[in-house]
Amino acid sequence: MAQKKIAVVLSGSGVYDGSEIHESVLTLLALSRHGVDYQCFAPDIPQHHVINHITGEEMQEQRNVLIESARIARGNIKPLSEFDAEAFDAIIFPGGFGAAKNLSSFAFDGTGCNVNSEVERAVEAMAASGKSIGALCISPAVIVKILEGATVTIGTDQATAEAIEAMGGKHKRAGHGEVVFDERYNLVTSPCYMLDASVAQIADGAEHAVSMLLERIG
Amino acid sequence: MAQKKIAVVLSGSGVYDGSEIHESVLTLLALSRHGVDYQCFAPDIPQHHVINHITGEEMQEQRNVLIESARIARGNIKPLSEFDAEAFDAIIFPGGFGAAKNLSSFAFDGTGCNVNSEVERAVEAMAASGKSIGALCISPAVIVKILEGATVTIGTDQATAEAIEAMGGKHKRAGHGEVVFDERYNLVTSPCYMLDASVAQIADGAEHAVSMLLERIG
Repeated sequence: MAQKKIAVVLSGSGVYDGSEIHESVLTLLALSRHGVDYQCFAPDIPQHHVINHITGEEMQEQRNVLIESARIARGNIKPLSEFDAEAFDAIIFPGGFGAAKNLSSFAFDGTGCNVNSEVERAVEAMAASGKSIGALCISPAVIVKILEGATVTIGTDQATAEAIEAMGGKHKRAGHGEVVFDERYNLVTSPCYMLDASVAQIADGAEHAVSMLLERIG
Repeated sequence: MAQKKIAVVLSGSGVYDGSEIHESVLTLLALSRHGVDYQCFAPDIPQHHVINHITGEEMQEQRNVLIESARIARGNIKPLSEFDAEAFDAIIFPGGFGAAKNLSSFAFDGTGCNVNSEVERAVEAMAASGKSIGALCISPAVIVKILEGATVTIGTDQATAEAIEAMGGKHKRAGHGEVVFDERYNLVTSPCYMLDASVAQIADGAEHAVSMLLERIG
């Protein structure tokens, strides 16, 4: 069988304004351990804002989602506009507020949020060809806005679970390292840091999500 | 026995101007898997510069080492000035150019480099009390500048190995996931991304270095 190829979509670099760094690296680790080839992508757009990760306050700076995501990817990253669903077997979205602030406006607009058009196009193209989709942490909230009636988990947070149902999704509670699978969309989700977790628990969640994603490719 | 406590010293967030993100996260993962308690630290100083991780070019921005390191630590980080050797069983330095640009001036001044005074104080205090010290990737070059005659590895890079010897250190070649141990200083080093490596190989290097560090605590 040909080498499996997975796209990883980042949204910056840092939990409060970009990709959650542990989830992103531990997704890459799981892919690396399974010996599959991966390519990181991110939209080439300004970050919604820049957060000081010590104080939680906004900084008067502007940063670019693609350029900051490149820190996690060690420079090996492409603009999401170049993503071609035909070249990949699966796509996975680590979490972090970047998914809710840069890939969508969920953090600000809740159920009435918009989704970045390149993210929408990528997810729709993968779903249309029956390919696997993975989403960690808060990213499932973005996916249910795109894939009507998708079943996902964001862990146990009641408010976010209700928002997902209000957007037409179905929510299933899940604990540390657990995954929820939606057969119709070939969609794997896991809560990761939507629960209070250790780094080792995040590694388990990423590993289980990636394992199931790869199983579904066959 | 009391819970072991390990200090992790970061130098920013991103391989070209700060801590190497994979090495940092995979060090935290190894510590988490071993069930030990850790605390991240970084000096509260300006970064030497900011590098666009796609182009490799300098950006006209100023960032702070502590604030950027907080992205990797999810906000749970302290200024290195508050580091107290008595409170920790071991200290470990992940790599990345930040070690050679922010924690020292090795990237610019080579063997004539200066080391940040807080880094120097922390390493000297740990060595004075016979506690374990770990250093990954390029960080061993900083350590040999502090600990006279230390034996370390940075992998196989000839120029860096010669610089280490010129600074009074001893260099041993090492491959993927291998560690070099200096009995006199209780010092564990491993090459990580000083070799062309996969994320899985970095995880192995971090795990082996952390395992040996913890073994030495006993």
